Amino acid sequence: MKARETSYPFKVECIDLETMDAWSFEKESGDLVHSSGRFFRVEGLRCTKNYGHIREWEQPIINQQEIGILGFITKEFDGLRHFLVQAKIEPGNINTIQLSPTVQATYSNYTQAHKGKLPAYLEYFLNPQKRILVDQLQSEQGTRFLRKRNRNIIIDCQEDLKLQDDFMWITLGQLKQLVAMNNHINMEARSILSCIALADDAGLVNTRGPIALAPNHSFSKRLIVSGFEKIRTKHSTEEIFQWMTEYKSTLYIHSNYLPLKKLTGGWQTNNAEIIHESRRYFSIIAVQVTAGSREVSQWTQPLVNSLSLGITGWICREIDGILHFLMKIRFEPGSVDLAELAPTISCTDGENCIYENNPPQFYEYFENVNPTHIHHDSWQSAEGGRFYHDTSRCLILEVDDFDLNVPDNYKWLTLGQIQNLMYSNNVINVECRDLLSCINYSGTFT
Amino acid sequence: MKARETSYPFKVECIDLETMDAWSFEKESGDLVHSSGRFFRVEGLRCTKNYGHIREWEQPIINQQEIGILGFITKEFDGLRHFLVQAKIEPGNINTIQLSPTVQATYSNYTQAHKGKLPAYLEYFLNPQKRILVDQLQSEQGTRFLRKRNRNIIIDCQEDLKLQDDFMWITLGQLKQLVAMNNHINMEARSILSCIALADDAGLVNTRGPIALAPNHSFSKRLIVSGFEKIRTKHSTEEIFQWMTEYKSTLYIHSNYLPLKKLTGGWQTNNAEIIHESRRYFSIIAVQVTAGSREVSQWTQPLVNSLSLGITGWICREIDGILHFLMKIRFEPGSVDLAELAPTISCTDGENCIYENNPPQFYEYFENVNPTHIHHDSWQSAEGGRFYHDTSRCLILEVDDFDLNVPDNYKWLTLGQIQNLMYSNNVINVECRDLLSCINYSGTFT
Repeated sequence: MKARETSYPFKVECIDLETMDAWSFEKESGDLVHSSGRFFRVEGLRCTKNYGHIREWEQPIINQQEIGILGFITKEFDGLRHFLVQAKIEPGNINTIQLSPTVQATYSNYTQAHKGKLPAYLEYFLNPQKRILVDQLQSEQGTRFLRKRNRNIIIDCQEDLKLQDDFMWITLGQLKQLVAMNNHINMEARSILSCIALADDAGLVNTRGPIALAPNHSFSKRLIVSGFEKIRTKHSTEEIFQWMTEYKSTLYIHSNYLPLKKLTGGWQTNNAEIIHESRRYFSIIAVQVTAGSREVSQWTQPLVNSLSLGITGWICREIDGILHFLMKIRFEPGSVDLAELAPTISCTDGENCIYENNPPQFYEYFENVNPTHIHHDSWQSAEGGRFYHDTSRCLILEVDDFDLNVPDNYKWLTLGQIQNLMYSNNVINVECRDLLSCINYSGTFT
Repeated sequence: MKARETSYPFKVECIDLETMDAWSFEKESGDLVHSSGRFFRVEGLRCTKNYGHIREWEQPIINQQEIGILGFITKEFDGLRHFLVQAKIEPGNINTIQLSPTVQATYSNYTQAHKGKLPAYLEYFLNPQKRILVDQLQSEQGTRFLRKRNRNIIIDCQEDLKLQDDFMWITLGQLKQLVAMNNHINMEARSILSCIALADDAGLVNTRGPIALAPNHSFSKRLIVSGFEKIRTKHSTEEIFQWMTEYKSTLYIHSNYLPLKKLTGGWQTNNAEIIHESRRYFSIIAVQVTAGSREVSQWTQPLVNSLSLGITGWICREIDGILHFLMKIRFEPGSVDLAELAPTISCTDGENCIYENNPPQFYEYFENVNPTHIHHDSWQSAEGGRFYHDTSRCLILEVDDFDLNVPDNYKWLTLGQIQNLMYSNNVINVECRDLLSCINYSGTFT
């Protein structure tokens, strides 16, 4: 990756919003739009909710209706499945290059709204005759995107394929090791990785055992037990669904479109950004990008500038000998289906959220982390094509004596239950999937 | 029911749109709104889609964001479960009174936007301590409603409860017999009934067998086999989900809000209605209602006037000895999640649909029905609180020699698979649930 970082000219500069090329404020609405009418729009959202202290607020939001493809091509070499990754540059990346899936393409991409070249290997995903191992529609950040989802797909390729520049074959074990490092595997790749269940019968798990069992490491062993466990659970899956139905039927966030020029609630637009007067949450900025390895070599675009570091974290503990993870039902203004299951804590905005009580529940466990609780600790980035220098600390904490009696909007689930709920779209949120992608059964956890 | 029809004064008159009391055209948008800002709004929708001959259109749509409760209280008498039904008057009903669930209440209802009395027995559903047998969020007509859903809930009541006027206890068998008659069981009750799976382990199916087995009737026997069958199926459930993901990722209907006053595309507003120049599809009218048995005794409201008779129908046939039902993946502008599984045919507008090729595929089987194909034939109404004199013919046809090779947007499923998909919200559409509610395993089918 270091080699790649120097081999291309790549420069990202913040510019004034008004000086973007193909992006401008639409006359009537003030929304930030592309001249082709495609890609995405930055709009306003007026939200009301019927619970908690904060009952109404406004915010900018990204409206990107089209469903993109996030796809890995995989192939067995000597009986070991390998994933075709790309070293990819994105304007919002902290470290310029991260490893991405084989293909990440929006509908605009592959129908040529760019007027650039087609993404490499795209044809493998447009041909439905391939053997499909994973194929799920999963949601993205409902605090930033209006009902955005991507198709997470893994295919098995039996034929030979020509390795292009910037691509390489690596194993799932290697991917998991790279996830444990900071900001190395991009959000799109992590999202796909999270769809691989331990008890997967689609052929992704090695016949020699799931990845590689390391019995000396007790947490990874217990993770495997929890990953298979769908029966000896604190709550049945029907109970989980019923609990979600109850919440979705009684609580709500109503989100209504608001032309960006009518956005108030503390939001201000200056030359450089759309920002809240508190200088919290996030802002909308513009960048000019010069690149050598993309479909088009120079462009300008808006990005979401995250103004604080995020925290995504799980508290887990054993219940009757099985590891359970504390999940929260979480309503977000851009959720496809009102609410999804989130990890114990998921704060895109650190301790501040525009619509929730601050600091969030259980924040104290993640603010001053007790080192003896930590099983996983890494920094992971949001999508560098939409977010500027966004990174969140991902923590998995085991707290033996954590009170089993939790507030009504939390429940304890096994890993197996969580992974099983992934098959229903729009149930497990993107922050929880981030933690799932960090889970490593092979024992690199201590 | 006849007795009830004469015991209350109930009168519905069509009036001019402008003469409604609490309803009016909102100044800025022209949307039809209630003065409280609650209940529902009639808005415009501008739609585009990326497949088929018709690529864009406009239409009015009902926006009712809140999730209502559709609930049955059930109770065992001498070991036989009974359902508490209400004889309920709705302004849009063809026959004034239909049997409804114990409670059907919108959030506005039970938080008193009406300023009237609370619906009877509502308290049983607001108390989460009851034993819950069914609890599912299910969608309604995506051609008429913008992402509307209701909570379908069945609870088991062990205590005695006082029977109020207009309420009575009837068995599931009696309910099923009444569904077989025309327009007797309202849409809300049918929606809940459809959630009861044959292979239900929540205690709704009698220990003496599912409802009552009648082995001489071969179709009902074969229905039971299909209802239990989740293994010997033409497609696995994973294949069904993958097929849906593929469609949702590549086809779309994009629906954008349009202020009603900007609605064009052939739609016209006169004193009495909002109607398309072709006089097809549906219109929006206003009615004045005088009633004796409702929370409020006189009111005016808009209704959707269906301008043609609907058709909802299944083609089924045996595949390797198991009955399979031909399902279609169907995109609707108001779908919660882009597309749902619909029966072989579901035409709210008879042979005309504003956004699909007309007549629809396989229409010929349902237009001139071969009497030897018919297993079920009844007329069922849409919700009388929103739809004026809307009724659709529900047909279940068995066609032995129907070509197994169907277009890509159709698949053959067993009843057991369909019923199992109900657990995931937003998968089985309301027209399919209508047919499920008509399924009677007890052998009244021939």
